[in-house]
Amino acid sequence: MHTPTQLQEIIEEAIPQIVYPNHPNNLYEPIRYIMSLGGKRIRPVMVLMAAELFTTDINKALDVALAIETFHNFTLVHDDIMDNAPLRRGKATVHEKWGVNNAILSGDVMMVESNKHLSKVDILVLKPVLDTFNATAQGVCEGQQLDMEFELRNNVSIDEYIEMIRLKTAVLLGGAMKLGAIVGGASTADADLLYKFGENLGIAFQLQDDILDVYGNPEKFGKQVGGDIISNKKTFLHLKTLALAQEHEVDSLTSIAIDQDVKVNQVTQLYNKYEIKELATIEMNKYLSKATAALDSLAVADEKKNNFRELVQQILKRDS
Amino acid sequence: MHTPTQLQEIIEEAIPQIVYPNHPNNLYEPIRYIMSLGGKRIRPVMVLMAAELFTTDINKALDVALAIETFHNFTLVHDDIMDNAPLRRGKATVHEKWGVNNAILSGDVMMVESNKHLSKVDILVLKPVLDTFNATAQGVCEGQQLDMEFELRNNVSIDEYIEMIRLKTAVLLGGAMKLGAIVGGASTADADLLYKFGENLGIAFQLQDDILDVYGNPEKFGKQVGGDIISNKKTFLHLKTLALAQEHEVDSLTSIAIDQDVKVNQVTQLYNKYEIKELATIEMNKYLSKATAALDSLAVADEKKNNFRELVQQILKRDS
Repeated sequence: MHTPTQLQEIIEEAIPQIVYPNHPNNLYEPIRYIMSLGGKRIRPVMVLMAAELFTTDINKALDVALAIETFHNFTLVHDDIMDNAPLRRGKATVHEKWGVNNAILSGDVMMVESNKHLSKVDILVLKPVLDTFNATAQGVCEGQQLDMEFELRNNVSIDEYIEMIRLKTAVLLGGAMKLGAIVGGASTADADLLYKFGENLGIAFQLQDDILDVYGNPEKFGKQVGGDIISNKKTFLHLKTLALAQEHEVDSLTSIAIDQDVKVNQVTQLYNKYEIKELATIEMNKYLSKATAALDSLAVADEKKNNFRELVQQILKRDS
Repeated sequence: MHTPTQLQEIIEEAIPQIVYPNHPNNLYEPIRYIMSLGGKRIRPVMVLMAAELFTTDINKALDVALAIETFHNFTLVHDDIMDNAPLRRGKATVHEKWGVNNAILSGDVMMVESNKHLSKVDILVLKPVLDTFNATAQGVCEGQQLDMEFELRNNVSIDEYIEMIRLKTAVLLGGAMKLGAIVGGASTADADLLYKFGENLGIAFQLQDDILDVYGNPEKFGKQVGGDIISNKKTFLHLKTLALAQEHEVDSLTSIAIDQDVKVNQVTQLYNKYEIKELATIEMNKYLSKATAALDSLAVADEKKNNFRELVQQILKRDS
């Protein structure tokens, strides 16, 4: 079995070998650009990890892994337009470099490229692969829609928030796991368990992200600590505090920051008062437990599950 | 066999029966909206027409027909954003009603919906159906990219223009025909001939569109006659005149219209001087001949081809 690092290297080697047409250059150059910006390639690595539970030939899963990575990058291109984001992984976003119209269209053709990768899988698993991929892609779009709508709403519930991060983030991790399992030759039951593992891991990961934005190690944290507080982002911490705090305390959560440090400080104190970090950790652990339970039920030799247990541990341990 | 009108009715009945999720409503309501705006449903009708050459059970082809119509409407939603168009079929465009971000995302999910329709075809033809659809979708995106780029260029050749309209418009008609043939059970040779028929018909249709914009019957023509002239659109007529006219004559083609009637009049006279209508008609007939040749070669009883010959005649006869 490969280590996750080895699998990441396989993905990093495969991506530059994807052949796109040369013409029209402005349609395809943005795809090469965004696909080369790197990242941890966590989603395609998950595809390969899941496949390797059931097959020794992970090449079977490479096309699906590239489909998932291409789809993920497509969502980044379109999301960055919607969020008006200037930077992605420290570099100019596609719409900043090529303009919004070009970015819409290059994103569209990335969706086609994803489907081209998918269509190369063994005909025996093609139908379940398509069904899983389409359900995943649809969920991700729904999650992005909810995320945009929540920005304009003042009455988002915790349940709605969990459902949004499930769709926007976790469904793709679940889908990646399930697709890897299917092309690896898993039973439907095992493929569904890996979906559950990935989805619950994804929700836990996003909750940990919310926690680390406030309580992360500032020296290791790549972004400004308290960034979510400054932008009044409706995270789990924010929404939970809104639900628990007294009316006069709520202002500091939703007011525009005049002095950013003061605002971060004020809100963090409020979070501390209501033990929001602990409540968020309990919530996170709930989803990690669900992920672990799915993993335990998987009809696969226990020693093969180590990489997956390591993923759970990484979330528990990370401080940035 | 069904008449084209009957096939159109089948499509019109099937579209409102497509079930989309209800939530998030703002993601799916734009899809219901754009799909209900009507139009001639020419692409899905072509799918069914092509299928019926090879099977008596056109229900086999209905999912593909809906995939093609959904994909076509997806391109309309995104193209209208890029073109900043306020109206589509006399109604507000999706981005006018729901905003640009929502329109991008609803378009994205329409692409997923297209793929969901496709995935329902018989497993025996699933792979060639996907390959044909993906090649078609990719071509349409390339055509839109070229169209946008041509607006900013002053040296577009006739060959480049034909290639652009082939990709932007004709490939989808060819793809619709080929997909219908495949699900109907055609041989590869016949499916490819129907692709050629559809593609060449599409190029001819667009050239006729260019001609009718200037020479169409103003009483029947739904848009302003000379609209292409007023907006300096790089049509076949425009580009051919640029290639033939003397330097001092070119100004009227490319200048901004101060008086629209004067401009349309001036340019039309220039077109007449260089017999551009006749040259465009020769070019159009070239593609209609190719379409007819492909149809003649098709290994199908001649009387079954009547609906297809009628399509050719409709283009030759139309005056609006």
